Amino acid sequence: SPANGNGMTLPSFPSDHVLNLEQGDPTVFESYWRKMGDKCTMVISGSELMSYISDFTSVCWFLEPALEAAVRRFHRTVGNAVVDGDRHIVVGTGSTQLYQAALYALTSPGRSEPVSVVSAAPYYSSYPDETDYLCSALYKWTGDAYAFNKTRHGPYIEVVNTPNNPDGTLREAVVKNRSDQGKLIHDLAYYWPQYTPITRPADHDIMYFTFSKSTGHAGSRIGWAIVKDREVARKMSKFVELSSLGVSKDSQQRAAKIMGVICDGYENCKSTDNSELFFDHCHQIMGNRWERLRKVVEQSEVFSLPNYPKKYCIFFGDSVEPYPAFAWMEAEEDVDTEKVLRGQIKVQGRTGRRFGVDQRYVRISMLSREDVFNHFLERLSTITSVTNGH
Amino acid sequence: SPANGNGMTLPSFPSDHVLNLEQGDPTVFESYWRKMGDKCTMVISGSELMSYISDFTSVCWFLEPALEAAVRRFHRTVGNAVVDGDRHIVVGTGSTQLYQAALYALTSPGRSEPVSVVSAAPYYSSYPDETDYLCSALYKWTGDAYAFNKTRHGPYIEVVNTPNNPDGTLREAVVKNRSDQGKLIHDLAYYWPQYTPITRPADHDIMYFTFSKSTGHAGSRIGWAIVKDREVARKMSKFVELSSLGVSKDSQQRAAKIMGVICDGYENCKSTDNSELFFDHCHQIMGNRWERLRKVVEQSEVFSLPNYPKKYCIFFGDSVEPYPAFAWMEAEEDVDTEKVLRGQIKVQGRTGRRFGVDQRYVRISMLSREDVFNHFLERLSTITSVTNGH
Repeated sequence: SPANGNGMTLPSFPSDHVLNLEQGDPTVFESYWRKMGDKCTMVISGSELMSYISDFTSVCWFLEPALEAAVRRFHRTVGNAVVDGDRHIVVGTGSTQLYQAALYALTSPGRSEPVSVVSAAPYYSSYPDETDYLCSALYKWTGDAYAFNKTRHGPYIEVVNTPNNPDGTLREAVVKNRSDQGKLIHDLAYYWPQYTPITRPADHDIMYFTFSKSTGHAGSRIGWAIVKDREVARKMSKFVELSSLGVSKDSQQRAAKIMGVICDGYENCKSTDNSELFFDHCHQIMGNRWERLRKVVEQSEVFSLPNYPKKYCIFFGDSVEPYPAFAWMEAEEDVDTEKVLRGQIKVQGRTGRRFGVDQRYVRISMLSREDVFNHFLERLSTITSVTNGH
Repeated sequence: SPANGNGMTLPSFPSDHVLNLEQGDPTVFESYWRKMGDKCTMVISGSELMSYISDFTSVCWFLEPALEAAVRRFHRTVGNAVVDGDRHIVVGTGSTQLYQAALYALTSPGRSEPVSVVSAAPYYSSYPDETDYLCSALYKWTGDAYAFNKTRHGPYIEVVNTPNNPDGTLREAVVKNRSDQGKLIHDLAYYWPQYTPITRPADHDIMYFTFSKSTGHAGSRIGWAIVKDREVARKMSKFVELSSLGVSKDSQQRAAKIMGVICDGYENCKSTDNSELFFDHCHQIMGNRWERLRKVVEQSEVFSLPNYPKKYCIFFGDSVEPYPAFAWMEAEEDVDTEKVLRGQIKVQGRTGRRFGVDQRYVRISMLSREDVFNHFLERLSTITSVTNGH
């Protein structure tokens, strides 16, 4: 029987059962979609979506026109990205593939040294491996952007992840005064109203989003980039072509449908009570989780959490608090927090070391199913002191 | 409106409309699936398949158990591959991703030179680009395996594509006497009964297949590898994780369903007339196309086609002729056949140069929709002489 690490098939959680909160698996949103019933049901007949090709006249020839339209409408509805005025859309097999597509598009063969790829620590733990696993001569992971800014030289690509995974902070590029030596990639996976106030439509050269974190459909592996320069969009599409000869059309159509249902909801809402609409509902869930987590963490006096300033959100039309997708927990110096959690309460997070910082930090997913989250809080409340996990 | 290069939306084919027969887009099989009606209809509710994870206890943690079971059953039904006795299944975003996963699995960082990747010419035109686009230090495209066998040394990976794209021949490894310097990848995309007699269950170390060519569902981007060694399967899965954090679950489930319908058909058939079952029906379509093509080619006296020996097919229980997915057309020396076809009859094929051989060869897809194929034959019959396309 399937084992997702969180015991879908288990009726309860015995205390020796490890709670897996290491990945950001967005199953928190399942219950919302379950309530939506048939509205989002995707039906594909056996003879549909068989061709490799969506539109040979497009820069991204494997992008389903329905998804392209849905993506533009989705961003117009939310207001979190500029999609009008000659912006190109490139679809990818999740944002993972688009990150690599962007690296490919921003580099060229024939340099004596690979281009440095940097991101400010703590940075998303997958960037180093996703950059270096093929030992490319085009680009090379060079680590913390702050360190690069101080001591290193040469051409570089800086990945700006905002709000940032793992720590939820808002980010801007940190490498300064390098004239035209640097290029930027904006990873906006978490720039959605349930996680963070939408302060303005993002308008960067290359920015990408993902179905996984926007609506919670990680299993569909759909990401999309919004790209200003046509040639960059063409090279990113070429990368996806060489990497996987396109992107699942079944999932592209499903993503288009689900985005459409969300947009319909906001367009058709007559009342001032939007609490059953997607972002409102999920913002509430996230707020509830963060409130409960902060209470437990305060009582324990062992860990601390970052504080995030309220900002005015143009989507909600109100000043709102950020509710990041991950809890970035910090313990005292010298404590290996991940080991403590794993050892004392059988909770699996991801250590700060994977994000380029200290082991006293641990990243915990806030996106698990409700019962897993409840058990996590229950167990966390039992910790009253920590000893070094070594 | 969508443009697939073959005028889905056009009511007819004016003679100046280019017929795109360059890709192997398997739309020939659409009509079969249309006739199957609701049997293969996939229904996915809004809350299903949301998690990244399928089974954390599996070597390939993002492989849907339903697809794994369907793949094994499919091969048992067809008899074209050994899937029992501890074979591991790795799913990929099409076989394109699995080819690269295999290269990654068979190499390691830290060598002074990248491992040579070779395949006997004419080889699949995408191997060179898919091998070299990231300028990996792990492996490097080295071209024709025959040339490598004669003159080059060192560690290598040979890709054996059988039946071979573009020329439909049956292949075995050609690099000889290198003891343990070489590793093999078997690309069996076309080892299905509609294209070639199934002579035995293939049983290689690493072999992969694709949904695109087996059933015609290219838009779903589903491929699978059958791997003997657990560590190789683990590394291939790691590649897919780093490349795209898994494979669309929507498409995995759809593939499982469609494979199941095919297998059900063969299991439940009571009569001796199987002509409405998938492989029987498609074998008939391919046979019909090949017969008509050969007639036109013979009459033109300008081109020639390979001849393929009949073999006993364990699936059909009869001696059958191969009907490759591509026509590998040859003209006289010095003629640029692709340019001739494009110039004289507005048919777009792919030149032999892309496959590592001479420009007098051109590859033409045999898998287009019926109307496109009919127009192709009509136009081809008008060619009575060729002049050099230069």
